[in-house]
Amino acid sequence: MKSTRKYFPALLLLAVAIFIAGCNRQDHAAQTADKMKNEQMDGAIRAVMDAQAAAWNRGDIEGFMDGYWKSNETLFLSGDSVTRGWQTVLDRYKRNYDSREKMGTLAFTELEVRPLSDEMAIVIGRWQLTREKDTPQGRFTLIFRRLPEGWRITHDHTS
Amino acid sequence: MKSTRKYFPALLLLAVAIFIAGCNRQDHAAQTADKMKNEQMDGAIRAVMDAQAAAWNRGDIEGFMDGYWKSNETLFLSGDSVTRGWQTVLDRYKRNYDSREKMGTLAFTELEVRPLSDEMAIVIGRWQLTREKDTPQGRFTLIFRRLPEGWRITHDHTS
Repeated sequence: MKSTRKYFPALLLLAVAIFIAGCNRQDHAAQTADKMKNEQMDGAIRAVMDAQAAAWNRGDIEGFMDGYWKSNETLFLSGDSVTRGWQTVLDRYKRNYDSREKMGTLAFTELEVRPLSDEMAIVIGRWQLTREKDTPQGRFTLIFRRLPEGWRITHDHTS
Repeated sequence: MKSTRKYFPALLLLAVAIFIAGCNRQDHAAQTADKMKNEQMDGAIRAVMDAQAAAWNRGDIEGFMDGYWKSNETLFLSGDSVTRGWQTVLDRYKRNYDSREKMGTLAFTELEVRPLSDEMAIVIGRWQLTREKDTPQGRFTLIFRRLPEGWRITHDHTS
C-alpha cells in the first residue's frame, strides 16, 4: 500500500501523458475524417447534379427535379421572381421547357462545392443549354442540405 | 457515518431530480436565448443592409461596399459572370455605376433573413433602382457571416 502511494505522482503523470497522446491521435483522426467527409460530400453532391443533367438530357423533368428537396420551403430565384415549393418549381420548369427542343442539352460546368457544415454546402457553377438555335447560359448558387433521402437542393438562385 | 450511508440512495435520487430540473430550466433558457439571438441577428443584418442603401443613395460606393467581407474570397455572381474578391467587386460597381444618374436611388425590399447557424444566415430580397429613365430591379441571395468586424456579405448572387 505504501509503495503504491509513493509512485502515485509518477503514475498520475504517466496517465496524463497517455491521455494527451490519445487526444493528439484523436485530433489527427478527426482531421483525416473531416477530409474524407468533405470528399464524400463533394462526390455525393456532384453525383446528384450529374443525375439531374442526365435526367434533363433524356427529357425527364421530374427526374431532374429529384435533385431538389421535396418541400414547400424549397426556393428558386431567377430574374425578378421567387418560386416557392418543389411542386411550383416543377410546374415552372414544365411551363418554360414544354418541348424537347426548348430543353436542349444541359451541361453543368465549373462546379465548386464549399462545405458550410457536415450537413450543408454552397455550390456555385455554370449552366448551359445547347439548342438548335441558341445556347442560353448563366450561373447558379445552390444551397445543398444532407437529408435522410440524400443531398438535396433547398435553395437555387440562377441567373 | 452510518446514517449518511442509510440516506445515500434518497440523497442520490434528490441530486438527480435537482439535476434534471436544472437541465429543463437550461433548455428553456436556451430556447429563449436562441430566439433573442435570431432577433439580434435579424436586426444586425438589416442594419448592415440599411447602411448599404443609405451609402448608395448618397453616391458612396465604398460605403456601400462596407457591407461586404473585405476578402479575396468574397464572391459576387450575376448574369453569366463570377466576380472574386472585395476589390474586384468594388471595381465592378464603380465601372457599372460611374455616375450619380446611373446609381439612381436604391431600395431593398421583401427581405427574409434565414439563420443557418449562430454565425451564418441566408438573406433573400428584392432590389430596385429608381432612375430618371428606368427602374431596373431583381432578386438577390446573400450569404452573411458574423465576423469580428460584424455581419458581412461573403457571397452575393444577384439577378
